[in-house]
Amino acid sequence: MPVYKDPSEGVVVGRQDLLAWAQSLLQRTGTPRDVAADVAEVLVASDLRGISSHGTARLAQYLKLVNAGVLDPAARPVKEKGKPALARFNANNGWGQHAARIATDDAIERAGELGAAISVVRNNNHYGIAGWYAMRIARKGLIGVSLTNAGAMVAPTRSRAPMLGTNPIAVAAPAGRFGMVVLDMATSTVPRGRIEVAARRGETIPRGWAIAPDGSSALTPEAALQGALQPLGGEEETGGYKGYGLALIVEMLTGVLGGATCGMHIMGLFSTAGNSDLGQFFMAIDPAAIDGDDGFESRLEALLEDITGAPPIPNAPGPVLYPGQPEAERAAYQEANGIALDRAVFENLSALADEHGVVFPTTASLPRQLSAALE
Amino acid sequence: MPVYKDPSEGVVVGRQDLLAWAQSLLQRTGTPRDVAADVAEVLVASDLRGISSHGTARLAQYLKLVNAGVLDPAARPVKEKGKPALARFNANNGWGQHAARIATDDAIERAGELGAAISVVRNNNHYGIAGWYAMRIARKGLIGVSLTNAGAMVAPTRSRAPMLGTNPIAVAAPAGRFGMVVLDMATSTVPRGRIEVAARRGETIPRGWAIAPDGSSALTPEAALQGALQPLGGEEETGGYKGYGLALIVEMLTGVLGGATCGMHIMGLFSTAGNSDLGQFFMAIDPAAIDGDDGFESRLEALLEDITGAPPIPNAPGPVLYPGQPEAERAAYQEANGIALDRAVFENLSALADEHGVVFPTTASLPRQLSAALE
Repeated sequence: MPVYKDPSEGVVVGRQDLLAWAQSLLQRTGTPRDVAADVAEVLVASDLRGISSHGTARLAQYLKLVNAGVLDPAARPVKEKGKPALARFNANNGWGQHAARIATDDAIERAGELGAAISVVRNNNHYGIAGWYAMRIARKGLIGVSLTNAGAMVAPTRSRAPMLGTNPIAVAAPAGRFGMVVLDMATSTVPRGRIEVAARRGETIPRGWAIAPDGSSALTPEAALQGALQPLGGEEETGGYKGYGLALIVEMLTGVLGGATCGMHIMGLFSTAGNSDLGQFFMAIDPAAIDGDDGFESRLEALLEDITGAPPIPNAPGPVLYPGQPEAERAAYQEANGIALDRAVFENLSALADEHGVVFPTTASLPRQLSAALE
Repeated sequence: MPVYKDPSEGVVVGRQDLLAWAQSLLQRTGTPRDVAADVAEVLVASDLRGISSHGTARLAQYLKLVNAGVLDPAARPVKEKGKPALARFNANNGWGQHAARIATDDAIERAGELGAAISVVRNNNHYGIAGWYAMRIARKGLIGVSLTNAGAMVAPTRSRAPMLGTNPIAVAAPAGRFGMVVLDMATSTVPRGRIEVAARRGETIPRGWAIAPDGSSALTPEAALQGALQPLGGEEETGGYKGYGLALIVEMLTGVLGGATCGMHIMGLFSTAGNSDLGQFFMAIDPAAIDGDDGFESRLEALLEDITGAPPIPNAPGPVLYPGQPEAERAAYQEANGIALDRAVFENLSALADEHGVVFPTTASLPRQLSAALE
């Protein structure tokens, strides 16, 4: 469902190898060791979960930002202001993943004392998959929330101009035998990457994904890529104003609350014309503050038992899933069998390896059965 | 957009008159004065905002619950357990609106000290519109969040059985010259009431609203009413799993976190077979804890300036709106001109008035210009 399915003639590389390589590469470009470890960890976790659009494939663009001087690789975040349950960090325009990890850990620590706590971050860069921070919180037994704003790509209902980012919502919680619930969703119907995939495959796209530049429904990927994404729900008639509302709320809790740049004024990840100054929001809620030690988790498990046992629709493409299940299954498979990288991504990373003199780890060719597993 | 548009041969009644009448009626049925004031306030606020499905039209069903002994009108909530930023209330099966108001105010007070605070409530009844509690928080200058679970009506993606409620998400914040941003949305594509309206009007319904009992897309309201609502996003292809994920997260933060009944086990509002035992979640976030006194609000205002000024799509049914704008406009109009009640609702309330000996206030017939304004 949410995992990208775009296998091609790729390669397989071990998780630890890829992690060590990415960290070395980042250190070679002026990033302190501990900061590089955070960035590499989040990127490789994304590849591991099958969200290859947000994984090491982003390294080349990230390094362009460093080279252009619009991302400071050595910067460290500072806690600027706050009260016990709400703190604001200034990321000082450093690596997004590092400042976000620091802010997340700070919220976890305060939530342990207070029952719940929030960190917001301003002046930050792209932080990778929103879900990673929510999962970090959930691994401690807490409910985690992670939100970020992003460069404008989504047209509010009735507007034909992109005014908001795909502003994701991520929520995670420990779920007993189900491992973890992880909702990690853009508030657009689909991410831009999904439309790029449709373009490469020569597919048409359904109503509700995007609009053309003139504001009409885009029914080809080409029209969509020149226009704007539609919010979750699509057209007004099918509830698109709800997805727009959610995107606006995410903007409000990140850019607006954090005092970062907002909406159409954000310099996107793919521009080196200026700093991104993104805003992010992290929240940790400790169920143990109001509950027995495992009451929450066993109740969530029972709910998932009910839902995954529901009778399916005719011709369902698979079983009833819980949020995060496909990504968790992909991660478990790739942890054991290595991470599959698209050929284009592999070539791109190999070029970075050559450029910076950090030898890319040994890879295997993508076995046929893995290709099938990725389908 | 989100306001119900179902005008019929109705009447107009003043807000204060309707409020006083509803409060008297509730007191006549064993509800303490202050509790009745909360219930009446939330119901009339819903009518005022044009959400007539959640307003005084619900009184007859509420009183059936009281008469059947499954809602205790004299119960008072107690704070059971918690830490400074996360408290759990037991509503003791009393009026939903009262326990929710108490829990909301408690969160506001703690957020003033801590920067943010959460209350969860268990063993509660239906609390009316989710947005009222978020707006109560926003009126204090804070960001408010309000969530509730509800009787199962929504089928998770790939399931043909209703397993989750329409589990609404409400978020509100002060927004300068725009008054307030108020997102108050069911996590289904549409509420059940919207399909009932289509049935009365003999309309077909679009794909993505609901499924028939066999799990196929419902294209008539009749099939939909026997089947289940679809989550926001509709079909899997158009992102319905995101709406399902949101509904599940709301369930997790309300029923699961609060230790209330969850999902398919909830006795809905329209059943007198047992207690509802709903769970709710309220959060207040104080931007002033990390900001100047009006920094947040002026930044939100600037964002709304941008968005509402965006160029429209061709043949847009109206201007680009911000969340809560149609309801705020309706409320302002009805505050000045009286609240329009459908003829059926008016007759229903008149019957209650007769039954309990509480004279219904003077009404005027719905003037033609109000009918037009409501369209």
